[in-house]
Amino acid sequence: MAKIIECVPNFSEGKNEEVINGLVSIAKSVGGVTLLDHSSDASHNRSVFTLVGDEVGIQEAAFQLVKYASENIDMTKQHGEHPRMGATDVVPFIPIKDSSVEECVEISKKVAKRINDELNIPIFLYEDSASTPSRKNLAKVRKGQFEGMPEKLKEEEWAPDFGERKIHPTAGITAVGARMPLVAFNVNLDTSDITIANKIAKIIRASGGGFKYAKGIGVMLEDRNIAQVSMNMVNFEGTPLYRTFETIRMEAKRYGVNIIGSEIIGLTPAKAMIDCAEYYLQVEDFDYGKQILENHLLG
Amino acid sequence: MAKIIECVPNFSEGKNEEVINGLVSIAKSVGGVTLLDHSSDASHNRSVFTLVGDEVGIQEAAFQLVKYASENIDMTKQHGEHPRMGATDVVPFIPIKDSSVEECVEISKKVAKRINDELNIPIFLYEDSASTPSRKNLAKVRKGQFEGMPEKLKEEEWAPDFGERKIHPTAGITAVGARMPLVAFNVNLDTSDITIANKIAKIIRASGGGFKYAKGIGVMLEDRNIAQVSMNMVNFEGTPLYRTFETIRMEAKRYGVNIIGSEIIGLTPAKAMIDCAEYYLQVEDFDYGKQILENHLLG
Repeated sequence: MAKIIECVPNFSEGKNEEVINGLVSIAKSVGGVTLLDHSSDASHNRSVFTLVGDEVGIQEAAFQLVKYASENIDMTKQHGEHPRMGATDVVPFIPIKDSSVEECVEISKKVAKRINDELNIPIFLYEDSASTPSRKNLAKVRKGQFEGMPEKLKEEEWAPDFGERKIHPTAGITAVGARMPLVAFNVNLDTSDITIANKIAKIIRASGGGFKYAKGIGVMLEDRNIAQVSMNMVNFEGTPLYRTFETIRMEAKRYGVNIIGSEIIGLTPAKAMIDCAEYYLQVEDFDYGKQILENHLLG
Repeated sequence: MAKIIECVPNFSEGKNEEVINGLVSIAKSVGGVTLLDHSSDASHNRSVFTLVGDEVGIQEAAFQLVKYASENIDMTKQHGEHPRMGATDVVPFIPIKDSSVEECVEISKKVAKRINDELNIPIFLYEDSASTPSRKNLAKVRKGQFEGMPEKLKEEEWAPDFGERKIHPTAGITAVGARMPLVAFNVNLDTSDITIANKIAKIIRASGGGFKYAKGIGVMLEDRNIAQVSMNMVNFEGTPLYRTFETIRMEAKRYGVNIIGSEIIGLTPAKAMIDCAEYYLQVEDFDYGKQILENHLLG
């Protein structure tokens, strides 16, 4: 079987259906690539696309999507709850089958170079493609966001990996990289107080002394008038979903706040969910590889 | 995405290696089908095969196995501890992926018709394929066994669903049907009092007024000196695992007893576990088909 590589570009548009449909059309038009999923959030003003494909197709699809976003999303007019620095904010490549993170690092660099060469958008390489330790972390790379980037790029340590120290006037700057699969897991609270979600997010995330493989921020869901702890679980085996969920529950109690629901955004590996079922059902000696029927079908 | 359907035929031969190997060869030779597992029990004189495949392959494999069994197992000379009525005793079809019980009922009827047309073996449709309520239950269908079938078929209510009121002289009669996957789920209590496990099992199971799709008995784990509620979850969508688990927790409290663990015996579909993760993590609007990454790679 051929290699399968996943690409999960995040675009800074979650409201304009014409633009979102344009991105969908492009994702579906590139040979050797399948659009698995796409979801748009109006309050985040962000769309997350999930594509899988072979080594050649996934690179072409990523480039064409970034090109379309640069032509149709104007960051000087963009506002939303989610931090962002570019029309295409991030472009991670993820090994799914018969591929490695190292291969995805190479792919990320090829795509980054092409984006800069042809579209004149500067690029930060991040995650496992990062050129320095401080660039591994997207939050650090993105700090300052679109509006702060012109100043940030003048700082000694923040020269882009591809391109000049100058953002694209409307498309900003994009982070391209490679990483292991990620689960976007958001927990909704029965409060409209964003400061509570912010405090809990800080406790959860590694940078705040929390879990090594969790990132988190507080987000206000304006349409529901509730606060949310929005997390990226960057290694669901190192930090399982249930552990952050129960810690959020525990910490929320201090404020008399309860969890009212959660969201998985986009795709998750089955194991990230099954590990949680094992925990809550207290299953003894469960063998994921052998006892999940589908694992005998995946060849 | 391709449909995946499971078939678990039971053959009335558990000793003769030549015949068992012949069945294995056939199971492995049909295109679009994978033999996941097979086990033979000499004292039961019975072999259970587990195959998965696409809609076309699984029908062909089932038919070819029944044909081989009819040519190589002589029920007039067959003896064993396990009740049986045919060379191939039962042929259940089970939806695994992108398929439904309703589709498997249709498949079971097609295979049943072909078996009767080409091999002249009469068929009872059972489980969800049953034509009358009394035929849902295999034990009732099989009552009388091979030796009693000639008389039973003459009874008003026991005309075969396919074929005449006359067994095949050496292959007898076969039950063909469809059902949901079964999950063997046991919950361990911190008590050595089997009567508590028995009382809870009665509350859980349909026959005791409990959950429609759960069967349960109390079992003593002698080596650990603890009592267990041992369940067969016959439709994990109708009665999810977490619901019995939490009900056991609640009922055990009456006796001051706690759950100390659980076991999944053998295989489980991923969805049976993921449904539990969804419940405990309070995931809103989770789409199993779309959001589980592996579901997009299995086709």
